[in-house]
Amino acid sequence: MSTFGLIEYNDASPEVRAIYDDIMTTRKTDWINNFWKAIAHDPATLKRTWESIKEIMAPGALDPLTKELIYVAVSVTNNCNYCIASHTASAVKKGMTTAMFKELQAVIGMANETNKLVTGYQVAIDEQFNLPFGTPK
Amino acid sequence: MSTFGLIEYNDASPEVRAIYDDIMTTRKTDWINNFWKAIAHDPATLKRTWESIKEIMAPGALDPLTKELIYVAVSVTNNCNYCIASHTASAVKKGMTTAMFKELQAVIGMANETNKLVTGYQVAIDEQFNLPFGTPK
Amino acid sequence: MSTFGLIEYNDASPEVRAIYDDIMTTRKTDWINNFWKAIAHDPATLKRTWESIKEIMAPGALDPLTKELIYVAVSVTNNCNYCIASHTASAVKKGMTTAMFKELQAVIGMANETNKLVTGYQVAIDEQFNLPFGTPK
Amino acid sequence: MSTFGLIEYNDASPEVRAIYDDIMTTRKTDWINNFWKAIAHDPATLKRTWESIKEIMAPGALDPLTKELIYVAVSVTNNCNYCIASHTASAVKKGMTTAMFKELQAVIGMANETNKLVTGYQVAIDEQFNLPFGTPK
Amino acid sequence: MSTFGLIEYNDASPEVRAIYDDIMTTRKTDWINNFWKAIAHDPATLKRTWESIKEIMAPGALDPLTKELIYVAVSVTNNCNYCIASHTASAVKKGMTTAMFKELQAVIGMANETNKLVTGYQVAIDEQFNLPFGTPK
Amino acid sequence: MSTFGLIEYNDASPEVRAIYDDIMTTRKTDWINNFWKAIAHDPATLKRTWESIKEIMAPGALDPLTKELIYVAVSVTNNCNYCIASHTASAVKKGMTTAMFKELQAVIGMANETNKLVTGYQVAIDEQFNLPFGTPK
Repeated sequence: MSTFGLIEYNDASPEVRAIYDDIMTTRKTDWINNFWKAIAHDPATLKRTWESIKEIMAPGALDPLTKELIYVAVSVTNNCNYCIASHTASAVKKGMTTAMFKELQAVIGMANETNKLVTGYQVAIDEQFNLPFGTPK
Repeated sequence: MSTFGLIEYNDASPEVRAIYDDIMTTRKTDWINNFWKAIAHDPATLKRTWESIKEIMAPGALDPLTKELIYVAVSVTNNCNYCIASHTASAVKKGMTTAMFKELQAVIGMANETNKLVTGYQVAIDEQFNLPFGTPK
Repeated sequence: MSTFGLIEYNDASPEVRAIYDDIMTTRKTDWINNFWKAIAHDPATLKRTWESIKEIMAPGALDPLTKELIYVAVSVTNNCNYCIASHTASAVKKGMTTAMFKELQAVIGMANETNKLVTGYQVAIDEQFNLPFGTPK
Repeated sequence: MSTFGLIEYNDASPEVRAIYDDIMTTRKTDWINNFWKAIAHDPATLKRTWESIKEIMAPGALDPLTKELIYVAVSVTNNCNYCIASHTASAVKKGMTTAMFKELQAVIGMANETNKLVTGYQVAIDEQFNLPFGTPK
Repeated sequence: MSTFGLIEYNDASPEVRAIYDDIMTTRKTDWINNFWKAIAHDPATLKRTWESIKEIMAPGALDPLTKELIYVAVSVTNNCNYCIASHTASAVKKGMTTAMFKELQAVIGMANETNKLVTGYQVAIDEQFNLPFGTPK
Repeated sequence: MSTFGLIEYNDASPEVRAIYDDIMTTRKTDWINNFWKAIAHDPATLKRTWESIKEIMAPGALDPLTKELIYVAVSVTNNCNYCIASHTASAVKKGMTTAMFKELQAVIGMANETNKLVTGYQVAIDEQFNLPFGTPK
């Protein structure tokens, strides 16, 4: 179904295999999901995307689970079913409980509603929100 | 600029004032932001929205800061400037550091990119992701 | 601010003027709003868009006010401020009361929320909804 | 396919059953569609969403059919297939004819087109549209 | 699956057949894709949409392949799977190579990412970009 | 207005300056637009974004102007005013004429309309479009 089919590990070039290996090592898993096998037709995009994801999703000021929750929130808002499936799975793996899942969905739903109420009523931004953004800590 | 103007506390009906009071008490603040003053023209919507927000954004399986980060992620994806301003301010108040802000934006940007790569390549969902959703914990 | 500036009636070609005249006659008004003056730089797009709008927004199985409410619903969901301003004004002209405006916004907000709850929970379509679409009446 | 499966009436808690009963009574129907069975895993969201929908979709300044048309317009713009299926069915039940359906789709399509022409040409809002919003009636 | 089913050539009215004929002649093909068969239930929309598409997608300042790439970019951003499938096929027919496809997707993904970084950081427009738009040529 | 203000060249760290220099050299320009100055608060994002853009927007199977047109199409569909302003300016610099601009907008508008007609009528994908994607050339 993917536009060009999927590139399996055994059929991959050494360049692509090296990335597949890094994905599996980084994620402590023994399989590659379809997203990577689909974009592997474009090794430059595969490499750039993986390296960006690896850097962005690593533990930092935000923990990996929080980052997955944010990823799911964007994916639901964009209506990307594949992304919802894969990042929900990742979030579960990183510790998302069903209670967290439900609260996540409730916040996503509410935010989408108030985003539109704000837009429909054409609410002007409060001066208080225009002040400089807190103080870096 | 708001469609009907804003309803200030002193001009509000007792019904609306009661909600304004609850907002200020719940948020430990002494002012009401424009969103509430704009939708106060429709007291039923004001009441329903505030009660929903109050319930959804309360501490639960997810802490209040995480919920604000999710709110910002939806608002950026939906391109709602008012919502970005107000929920970024709320997130700062609840402890978002600038380091967290930067990581939040990086994840939002990346998620929006891969959502579209998935869509453009029409990637089929992996069987592994179709399995029942983890085990409630 | 419009990309190429606005083409005023007095500066318009006979071809563009004829469309401006038809817009004013059809709408029983004596001015042209900026949208038409902006796209008048491309007379083919001006003509095609006006003729389509004129045909689509005419009274039919749905009355003109209902059509404007639908137009506002799309414009709010798409976050198009110009479109919200112009079609809210048109709706008022066609009889939208403030009570209708408030209910319109409440429905738009709610629909945006449940659209995302459906997506987040990945709800499968009920067999009942897959049945053939009613009977033409 | 729904993330946690569906909660059928016979397996539901008394709290959830009470809401299912209210849905069926209010809608004069003898079955519950999947959306409610999916979010029933989170009784708080089920209750809040049902009560909001019940209040918002009730007859008011806008009749129930007009509200369903608006719901469909949002759902099409958001590309939510489940929502399109369920609210198209509701609209038919409330009297939408095929002629109305066709005009609805034509308006949705046109609004999405002009929303983007406005954005692409960066059209500034006419002063006339900035005037206060009509007079409450 | 289409709401009203599809209108095949043999079952079409003379009015609809004339449009089907024009589509096949213009596109040098001997079949009609489902989009047209679905909207043929509304001959006015069928006629208006086909005439607009025919005019807009014709060779002009932009060549037909470039127009198809733009169409795919919009369709991916809107997450419209049918549109992606049909316009990717059209683009291939007009000369899109796999190398072009990959670059197209990379640009779409990147644009979606930076669109959101711009929004998340609330970047103000540079004065240089507010200058009048080049010189018409 | 940008969340943290803008980092000017003279105030930038050597790491950031090196990227600013590369941007100006690559683009043959002597100034840096606000996007880069805004995200420079997060040097990792600045670096990753610039390197990705540089790679993706370079001449390849698609020429740089075509890539800018695609970028504008995504930005208009996403309603990102900054992105529209900056990429319209880039497109002009790379040779976009006003005739091209008008055709670009017409295609974007049309694509957004038919995307929604397809969705509203729930059109099923033609078997012909499910065939493997052409032959790599």
